[in-house]
Amino acid sequence: MSSFIELQTQHRHRVDRAIEGYISSLPFNQSAMVEAMRHGALLGGKRLRPFLVYATGEMLGLSPDNLDAPAAAIECIHAYSLIHDDLPAMDDDDLRRGQPTCHIKFGEAHAILAGDALQTLAFSILCDAPMPDVQIADRLAMIGELAHASGAAGMCAGQALDLEAEKRKVNLQELERIHRHKTGALIRAAIRLAALAAGEPGKAALPLLDRYANAIGLAFQVQDDILDVVGTTEKTGKRQGSDLQHEKSTYPALLGIAGAQTKALDLYREAMDSLSELAAQSYNTAALEALAGFIIERDN
Amino acid sequence: MSSFIELQTQHRHRVDRAIEGYISSLPFNQSAMVEAMRHGALLGGKRLRPFLVYATGEMLGLSPDNLDAPAAAIECIHAYSLIHDDLPAMDDDDLRRGQPTCHIKFGEAHAILAGDALQTLAFSILCDAPMPDVQIADRLAMIGELAHASGAAGMCAGQALDLEAEKRKVNLQELERIHRHKTGALIRAAIRLAALAAGEPGKAALPLLDRYANAIGLAFQVQDDILDVVGTTEKTGKRQGSDLQHEKSTYPALLGIAGAQTKALDLYREAMDSLSELAAQSYNTAALEALAGFIIERDN
Repeated sequence: MSSFIELQTQHRHRVDRAIEGYISSLPFNQSAMVEAMRHGALLGGKRLRPFLVYATGEMLGLSPDNLDAPAAAIECIHAYSLIHDDLPAMDDDDLRRGQPTCHIKFGEAHAILAGDALQTLAFSILCDAPMPDVQIADRLAMIGELAHASGAAGMCAGQALDLEAEKRKVNLQELERIHRHKTGALIRAAIRLAALAAGEPGKAALPLLDRYANAIGLAFQVQDDILDVVGTTEKTGKRQGSDLQHEKSTYPALLGIAGAQTKALDLYREAMDSLSELAAQSYNTAALEALAGFIIERDN
Repeated sequence: MSSFIELQTQHRHRVDRAIEGYISSLPFNQSAMVEAMRHGALLGGKRLRPFLVYATGEMLGLSPDNLDAPAAAIECIHAYSLIHDDLPAMDDDDLRRGQPTCHIKFGEAHAILAGDALQTLAFSILCDAPMPDVQIADRLAMIGELAHASGAAGMCAGQALDLEAEKRKVNLQELERIHRHKTGALIRAAIRLAALAAGEPGKAALPLLDRYANAIGLAFQVQDDILDVVGTTEKTGKRQGSDLQHEKSTYPALLGIAGAQTKALDLYREAMDSLSELAAQSYNTAALEALAGFIIERDN
């Protein structure tokens, strides 16, 4: 686990430097809106999606300077979604990563705008930032992938399904559909962006990578639900019991804590199976293996 | 004027068909979020930006099937910005184009999400939709242009400048800076998207097109401010006097009605000068001329 944390720290610093660079180069970069963008994009977090971009891209032979742009872009999308998700009209959360949420600190109007502008920034980055070894057609495919995964076919659809499921019971299949869109699509996109950047070898590895991504994406959400019940606000930086308070359907609610833990372990095994097949093709899957372990073992 | 209205109607129908097609092809296309996207993107409006895309692109020799994607994409960005701008935390408007605003009809959470997803859809369209005669590098430049014009360097910056100017007096220079970002950037982008789609001839014409775009973009805002004072809710579909109520700085407030009308006329003349130079290069500038006239003569 310690080597995983070292690697995670290294990737986090790298993507934070990249995001800070993109934000600092904006005009009006001392304005409240841009400060709100910084707050949303740079204040801690596990940097799971950038980790996946770097780990997958490096496994496929790309140097990290090709991966800063997709890592930063996907984190900007994630950050915008959290800012908007925390708004009073959505989840109405005041605490995120142990800090006041964006609208608490900057007001609702600036939080809405900062989220909007972070989404745009993600596409700007994928369009303009250097990716020295990436072909132009692959860059275009990466933009299409990010748009597909984050919009009305992906993450936004998941948010909408989640809204519609509020205050009513959903079954396991519906819950899975919500999460495959709401969080799964972007986790899968992190891996796919790196694979597309890598050109032909990446495309050949996509089916196995997709299987890995789908498994860890859902495992991440199952563990998130478990932590909302058994975690502490101090560790998670979120209000503990927030799902319960919002009467949200969760894996522990449907399967019990033990059942949810079994589900997470099954998904972990599926992810590891997929990596075994990649390892058999001589890929170094160590970082992706470590990440899969972290996802079901984490306490924050 | 009647031929302008015919042309406007034709472009409006064309872009509405394109947008309806993109939205209908989304998954979950009967969900409240997608209905809210439809409401925001398809319920009337002058379709000024799509008009500029078609008129500029056709002037530069492109067939309209190359222009549906940029016309629809830029209208999706415009529509998302209106949905978010109307939210209670922003301008808190209940009426737009004579209809209830998106959050009045679908609730705030769905309005936030629909705006987010319309922004994403714009980039999806530019990435994936057919533009048979457009080179891949030009398509990428179009995506970059739209992101630059709509994000923290363009439209969102204008919204933020506008927020910061609320309830205090701004001078003419500050007001112009707000509008050059808030509405001007996207109007300019409409013209630039078409020019980039057209390849080399478009790039050569860019300086004159930029000058035209800057002039009509500002003229549009000056006329908007005038209509907020002298127009009627029935004609404009917006609450008349809304700027005054929000204590917004406007051109009539700074220059008087007559002064604002003179300013609009000066900008019209500048736009027409720029078109004369394009006409001298044998371009047919009739549609862009008619649009410039419409902008300062319109009563809605």
